[in-house]
Amino acid sequence: MRAWNDEVDGLAYGGDYNPEQWPREVWDEDITLMQEAGVNLVSLGIFSWASIEPREGEFHWEWLDEIVDKLHAGGIGICLATATASPPPWLTRKHPEILPQREDGTVLNQGARQSYAISSPVYRRYATVMASRMAQRYASHPAVRLWHIDNEIGCHVPQDYSDNAIPAFRAWLTQRYGTIEALNEAWGAAFWSQRYGRFDDVLPPRSAPTYANPTQQLDFMRFNSDAGLSYYSALAAAVHAVDASIPATTNFMCSAGSKGVDYFAWGPHMSVVSNDHYTRAHDPERHIELAFSADLTRGTAQGEPWLLMEHSSSAVNWQHVNRAKDPGEMVRNSLAHVARGADGALFFQWRASRAGAEKFHSALVPHAGTDSLVWRSTVELGRCLRALAPVKGSRLVSRAALVFDYSAWWGLELDSHPNNTLSYPDLVLDWYKALWYEGIAVDIVAPDADLSGYSLVVAPNLYITAPNAAAHLAGVAERGGVLATTWLSGIVDADDHIILGGYPGAFRDVLGIRVEEFHPLQAGESHAVRLWDEPTTASTWTERLDLRGAQAHGVLEDGVLTGTPVVTEHTLESGGHAWYVAADLPVDAKRALVRAWADQAGIVPVVVAPEGVEAVVRHGEGADFMFLLNHTADSVTLEVTGTDLLSGHDADGSLTLPAGAVAVLRTPADAQPSDERD
Amino acid sequence: MRAWNDEVDGLAYGGDYNPEQWPREVWDEDITLMQEAGVNLVSLGIFSWASIEPREGEFHWEWLDEIVDKLHAGGIGICLATATASPPPWLTRKHPEILPQREDGTVLNQGARQSYAISSPVYRRYATVMASRMAQRYASHPAVRLWHIDNEIGCHVPQDYSDNAIPAFRAWLTQRYGTIEALNEAWGAAFWSQRYGRFDDVLPPRSAPTYANPTQQLDFMRFNSDAGLSYYSALAAAVHAVDASIPATTNFMCSAGSKGVDYFAWGPHMSVVSNDHYTRAHDPERHIELAFSADLTRGTAQGEPWLLMEHSSSAVNWQHVNRAKDPGEMVRNSLAHVARGADGALFFQWRASRAGAEKFHSALVPHAGTDSLVWRSTVELGRCLRALAPVKGSRLVSRAALVFDYSAWWGLELDSHPNNTLSYPDLVLDWYKALWYEGIAVDIVAPDADLSGYSLVVAPNLYITAPNAAAHLAGVAERGGVLATTWLSGIVDADDHIILGGYPGAFRDVLGIRVEEFHPLQAGESHAVRLWDEPTTASTWTERLDLRGAQAHGVLEDGVLTGTPVVTEHTLESGGHAWYVAADLPVDAKRALVRAWADQAGIVPVVVAPEGVEAVVRHGEGADFMFLLNHTADSVTLEVTGTDLLSGHDADGSLTLPAGAVAVLRTPADAQPSDERD
Amino acid sequence: MRAWNDEVDGLAYGGDYNPEQWPREVWDEDITLMQEAGVNLVSLGIFSWASIEPREGEFHWEWLDEIVDKLHAGGIGICLATATASPPPWLTRKHPEILPQREDGTVLNQGARQSYAISSPVYRRYATVMASRMAQRYASHPAVRLWHIDNEIGCHVPQDYSDNAIPAFRAWLTQRYGTIEALNEAWGAAFWSQRYGRFDDVLPPRSAPTYANPTQQLDFMRFNSDAGLSYYSALAAAVHAVDASIPATTNFMCSAGSKGVDYFAWGPHMSVVSNDHYTRAHDPERHIELAFSADLTRGTAQGEPWLLMEHSSSAVNWQHVNRAKDPGEMVRNSLAHVARGADGALFFQWRASRAGAEKFHSALVPHAGTDSLVWRSTVELGRCLRALAPVKGSRLVSRAALVFDYSAWWGLELDSHPNNTLSYPDLVLDWYKALWYEGIAVDIVAPDADLSGYSLVVAPNLYITAPNAAAHLAGVAERGGVLATTWLSGIVDADDHIILGGYPGAFRDVLGIRVEEFHPLQAGESHAVRLWDEPTTASTWTERLDLRGAQAHGVLEDGVLTGTPVVTEHTLESGGHAWYVAADLPVDAKRALVRAWADQAGIVPVVVAPEGVEAVVRHGEGADFMFLLNHTADSVTLEVTGTDLLSGHDADGSLTLPAGAVAVLRTPADAQPSDERD
Repeated sequence: MRAWNDEVDGLAYGGDYNPEQWPREVWDEDITLMQEAGVNLVSLGIFSWASIEPREGEFHWEWLDEIVDKLHAGGIGICLATATASPPPWLTRKHPEILPQREDGTVLNQGARQSYAISSPVYRRYATVMASRMAQRYASHPAVRLWHIDNEIGCHVPQDYSDNAIPAFRAWLTQRYGTIEALNEAWGAAFWSQRYGRFDDVLPPRSAPTYANPTQQLDFMRFNSDAGLSYYSALAAAVHAVDASIPATTNFMCSAGSKGVDYFAWGPHMSVVSNDHYTRAHDPERHIELAFSADLTRGTAQGEPWLLMEHSSSAVNWQHVNRAKDPGEMVRNSLAHVARGADGALFFQWRASRAGAEKFHSALVPHAGTDSLVWRSTVELGRCLRALAPVKGSRLVSRAALVFDYSAWWGLELDSHPNNTLSYPDLVLDWYKALWYEGIAVDIVAPDADLSGYSLVVAPNLYITAPNAAAHLAGVAERGGVLATTWLSGIVDADDHIILGGYPGAFRDVLGIRVEEFHPLQAGESHAVRLWDEPTTASTWTERLDLRGAQAHGVLEDGVLTGTPVVTEHTLESGGHAWYVAADLPVDAKRALVRAWADQAGIVPVVVAPEGVEAVVRHGEGADFMFLLNHTADSVTLEVTGTDLLSGHDADGSLTLPAGAVAVLRTPADAQPSDERD
Repeated sequence: MRAWNDEVDGLAYGGDYNPEQWPREVWDEDITLMQEAGVNLVSLGIFSWASIEPREGEFHWEWLDEIVDKLHAGGIGICLATATASPPPWLTRKHPEILPQREDGTVLNQGARQSYAISSPVYRRYATVMASRMAQRYASHPAVRLWHIDNEIGCHVPQDYSDNAIPAFRAWLTQRYGTIEALNEAWGAAFWSQRYGRFDDVLPPRSAPTYANPTQQLDFMRFNSDAGLSYYSALAAAVHAVDASIPATTNFMCSAGSKGVDYFAWGPHMSVVSNDHYTRAHDPERHIELAFSADLTRGTAQGEPWLLMEHSSSAVNWQHVNRAKDPGEMVRNSLAHVARGADGALFFQWRASRAGAEKFHSALVPHAGTDSLVWRSTVELGRCLRALAPVKGSRLVSRAALVFDYSAWWGLELDSHPNNTLSYPDLVLDWYKALWYEGIAVDIVAPDADLSGYSLVVAPNLYITAPNAAAHLAGVAERGGVLATTWLSGIVDADDHIILGGYPGAFRDVLGIRVEEFHPLQAGESHAVRLWDEPTTASTWTERLDLRGAQAHGVLEDGVLTGTPVVTEHTLESGGHAWYVAADLPVDAKRALVRAWADQAGIVPVVVAPEGVEAVVRHGEGADFMFLLNHTADSVTLEVTGTDLLSGHDADGSLTLPAGAVAVLRTPADAQPSDERD
Repeated sequence: MRAWNDEVDGLAYGGDYNPEQWPREVWDEDITLMQEAGVNLVSLGIFSWASIEPREGEFHWEWLDEIVDKLHAGGIGICLATATASPPPWLTRKHPEILPQREDGTVLNQGARQSYAISSPVYRRYATVMASRMAQRYASHPAVRLWHIDNEIGCHVPQDYSDNAIPAFRAWLTQRYGTIEALNEAWGAAFWSQRYGRFDDVLPPRSAPTYANPTQQLDFMRFNSDAGLSYYSALAAAVHAVDASIPATTNFMCSAGSKGVDYFAWGPHMSVVSNDHYTRAHDPERHIELAFSADLTRGTAQGEPWLLMEHSSSAVNWQHVNRAKDPGEMVRNSLAHVARGADGALFFQWRASRAGAEKFHSALVPHAGTDSLVWRSTVELGRCLRALAPVKGSRLVSRAALVFDYSAWWGLELDSHPNNTLSYPDLVLDWYKALWYEGIAVDIVAPDADLSGYSLVVAPNLYITAPNAAAHLAGVAERGGVLATTWLSGIVDADDHIILGGYPGAFRDVLGIRVEEFHPLQAGESHAVRLWDEPTTASTWTERLDLRGAQAHGVLEDGVLTGTPVVTEHTLESGGHAWYVAADLPVDAKRALVRAWADQAGIVPVVVAPEGVEAVVRHGEGADFMFLLNHTADSVTLEVTGTDLLSGHDADGSLTLPAGAVAVLRTPADAQPSDERD
């Protein structure tokens, strides 16, 4: 198989391109403007099925042939879609049984997009045929760089409860459990008279009089994630049956907001991992959530460079109030992704639509045309990406890891829990922010990742922890490293069964503590805590904890749990340390803890930078690249050395970075300050 | 056709009358009390179908015959309903396919009211037969003044998504577009693979995985409004087939809260426009919303006198907390409608029900009986309306217009917009309030109304603007008048396609500006503005705007758009002025702008009155009538002249109006201060 | 029939026991621990159907036989369930027509619990057969003390709208009304064309375009409550057909939160009333709501001792944020129930589950095992209950009653009311709190209860009052007692028809007042009130009231109703007093009123205790038992005499009760201070 970017000159730049929405006269302007901006890769055909085949069996390839040739002639590569992301109306009308359904039986009709059930055998047959047709027609075209399989699979219908799901879910369960008794045991089906006599009596967890079985809910999320991957694989197989040499991907949505898919499980099946990311209008720390998303994406790619398939030049259309980006923010956002491993920055979309549900979504060419801040940013970003061509293929190296787990997410947010107000990604993101502010570079990894390279592993709120995963994480401390975990970690096994004998069952021994009972706090309730010599507060959660070998660094100072430890450290014979945080603490306390852990692990920031200045290093062959992003409203001066690829200037021990600006310093390999302490 | 009020003595007074809810002994008391109060018109039979025909084919006319005769004998005219507002249970049980459905497929059953699909051919057949029966039995009865066709059509089911809608919507689309390719173009169906191969594949915009096509949603609202009118017309035709001389109406719900129907389109089909209006308990400026509703109703009647078909003597039953009216408020509310063109004030309902969903809705005869404030107000209002008989037929004349458009409402509030928190009627109402406080009388008109009589036209947030409408509005300024518009006006054409090249595409040239990008503001976010010499603030919305011929009167003073104009004026060669407001401003700033515009247009208030005192003039043949309504808690003194029809007193240059009081001064025609400056 | 507790040694102690969730090795530990804690009664088999009969016709009795024998051998009695609380999956798959439905047609599937329609004849057939099988197998077993019929009937599906409900609802209506004309009259069906031609046209009040007929809604709630009782009776008959000597019950959910069932109507059908109660995490006065629940339960048992079938050792799992109990709170909560008539304290559940939707619900044996505060509390409670054995069978005697009515609840909270923000139980609970703080012991009774023993009857917000109930309540004052009622009492009759002529129609005469019109207040709105010499405030509600024989004690001091009475007293010829409160007043004002009423009625607290110390007396044969519960955070000293059964110490005129502690003083009968004044 070819590398997706072998024929891309430098870093990839471009976006979704939907020429079918525009008259022919616009196409030529598009090519000219793409060249002006330095675009070298566009995603084509994502929603083209109905334009290619408006009536069953009636094909209109001519327009697509024409634009493919035009792009090629213009020197622009194509990430070619299977055109299956939304079935054409004739197909949903002919086969309404392919429509997905909500939990309560509501049918999700045509008229928007993605109106297909992920497990529908009928839709899968039609879609694979369509994918084959695309491959047969275009696989040999020299412009095609990469297959774009479907699009944002699972985005709008993360779980489908239609009858399509029934045989597929049963088959998945049979595969997982073998016997119905094993399913009954895993699901705790003795509870509430739920014991099944046979697999053929099992249904999706549709609306019921009250809480559905939690393991059934959990398995249904796992099944849907797997069903999406199975769908991806079927389409990828269809295009690879025509030509196995063209790489394939589908755009992930790694972020704190996209819950339906276990992207760690999907990652290995991609020729290259690609991701879509959009910043959150309401969040003043949106640049940190962006960094989290990028690190998570790199984690699903197992550290390999990846492709930013979509982000936005300015506002999106689907948030409550859609914020336009500030001057410079578009370029800074794009380069922040590149800093964390992206070998390209693509957008939704090339040209802002005139009509349809996404017409108010920003694009590289705005409604106002080229006499606009957005267009000038488009051109400027092209310049930056060309200047960063040497970065291509370089990689990040971290000695700290943050554990993120989709099963833990699904499990922690199930109903009927001690505190039903929790968001798993927000809890993890809060720790990520503490690490970000302290300049501690992390990889975001699954709990079963290879942890041997990490001297610090932070695993917050890891509600579900299979026994082998618990041992795997404990190994960090047992090998002499630092393991840190928090409340609501290690509570249940993979089947959502409580690990008995005191919480957190999976980590009790390594942490040297035992928790008898949870004391979640009401909204607005908090308790005083003393952490070392500083006062702080516990909110959201506390617990009745006693030490079994650990020492306390923080203690509750009021309420019925007065005197109870809230921050504990267990020093192991290996010299390793296992920390536990038994309450939700404010960001300052989290930062103090992170500093202590990094200190123990011998990790320091790559550069001493003022708060709000982000510094990330990519290591290439023979050269390192330090990305410096000033997210503050003030100019800052940094003690750094190297050549700024963006400005061409040399920083000789000192660099002044204006408010909002970015620099990328190239130095000989390993000349950068390491994140490892002497 | 007869005039509906030819045989009504003076202004109409009365309400919905539902004698079927009461035993015979109450009927005689009703007639006596109606006479005592001066009631001269009641709406009869609105919900009587099941009482007339409790089982299919079994008719009980006797009770209706009796009350019709009794009313006539008592000198009370009848607005006779078609009795079709709610199908009887036998009909929905026999034909459940007539039941309407929600977007998600939920069937809306019998047991409440209006449980019919507006496009159901079966229900239309039954309803027209029923209407014919009513006409055959009563059209020749001398008490009948007016047909009340159905009731509040579209109130509870503004859009019906049942299978009934499918063929009707397709037929409507075929009529509108001719070819499926024209529909595809209008709907931007190239987006998201929505291109249709034939009309027979189109469905209502039922629940879908995400945002349905916006033009499909918009057309479905237009279709439903038209379907309601078609239903009205079928019933009106049925009664007119029996006797074409009796006028017909159906009660509109013109207000800031009723979105389903384009009443401007319905108005011309009414023999007389009639309206239902209820004040909003939570709104301390509810009397201004009342004025807005009345002006809007008059707009749908193209300036003709209209009939207030329903309002309330005191509390309603369907708001969150239902406020009783203060002493005097009922009379003041009724006369406020008369001031703005109503030639009658009717109520829901005559006598408060004992049972059913509306038993806590106030009426002219309350549960407590006649020893009550409500009943005394009922009698007092009768006295006032008799005293105002000379007002009948007189008309308002305004030199300013406020543009209101149902398509703009439907379009602006579609999903996936830059700011998804907006209410179109509230935005327009905010400008109406500024005009009201400044005493600037306006007509509320559709964008395609004849604007030749207006020297000032204010068109806020006119999101959808067809090209001809834009030219029509621009003509105001081009003829030397004042045109004022705001952000989110002229953004899309009638198909919800962006008008490209910079916002607001439809008005860019006349306004002499160009907007590059929207910068909507989060809830709670605001920016400093200087408007002339005064500080004020922008909230909800700002935008990146540059001047292309206009001058700036207000400028942003902080944030990324510092220095950007927010209030602009373009002076045309004609001497006309085109103003633009690029942000949401507080009421004080709006009032300052309104004053400036009125000043340019040469418009002054009819009288100088303290804040909160409303002054409106109706011009009759040979006499003018100045309505003065004191909405404040204090007595005020006004410099006015004329004879107060209510008190009989003469105001000779000075009138003292107690708190809450109303006066109606009669003067010779044209002796009133005009709203035109010398 | 045997008494349920004849063979229970002292007070009952135990909980739900679900051994099918655990391996055999745990069972022996269970018996040992039960003995250690003093457990003498467990509920067995509630959700066992699918474990007994995992496939239709395939029975696995062996495990149940074994544990029944083990319990018996361990000296532990069994409250044996019919195993019907949740149908096994094979049954819902074989007969999906038994599934219940929501108002909007959503099917409530298997996968949780209680997925059966209460009126399904198919499910009733299967369930009665299953109950018979349980009886045939175990009725003669000596361990069986009591039948546990189904479980929390109506909890998750208080109203079922499926087709199962149609014939049953029609039959119920035919029984109630006899003729369809009587139904039409009762339902006010002349309104909105709802008149029915035959019972076969009536449906449940399914989703409709707007408010369904209120009497239809009310009758549907009554029908569902009766259908639940009918279901209970069918199962009870099935087990009694095998052996009529074993008593039967089903666990009620008497509380301020459980609305579906009229437990006053169900009570007489129980061999012993049993109740489930859970405290409300968010409510700092949760111990008062507990007392309310216990008094209400005793009311449904007509004063007889009852059984606390479920409560929790600590946190539950189904609230928003689930609060753990403080040290001592579990014991205090249990004894608070015993204080108010419970002859036993059982829990959900014995051992905390490992899996399933309730695994985070606390139990007597927590996940952490026996080295835990919870387990130590379990043992301590066992000790207390054994010490309280003499209390068994003793009863409370109150001279004050608080009226509570399920029909009034259902009626008051119907839609389209004057103030649609009201909660009936919260309104009643507010008065209960005032009584609790003032130490006035009350029985909570239905409006048709025997009131002859009460000198004070408080009936707040008794919206629905049948004419005979009104006369019955008026009788309290007419006999010389004190009757107190409030706004929104006596408004409608049993059919939800307004009682005309001025509110509150049912009580106008006895109260000596007349209300002309309601003036409900918006959220946040309030008016000044003077009550005697104290300033206070009216919120939520006011009304236009005039005196017709009563005198005013409190008057509105601002707003349009300035000068209007808000608290009135009518002194009757008998010397009795009828009080009325026309607004919602703060708790201090309520307490002042309650003091005044108790004073008039000659009622005093059983002991003078500091605020937050609860004192309740149970009267036994030959001895009285004064329960003293210190709910405060401080130690208190009380002037009391007797022997504390819990500590064994004698209080000789003075008792010091530490923070959170409980004492139960035994004295010779009638030696306790009475609640009757000398």
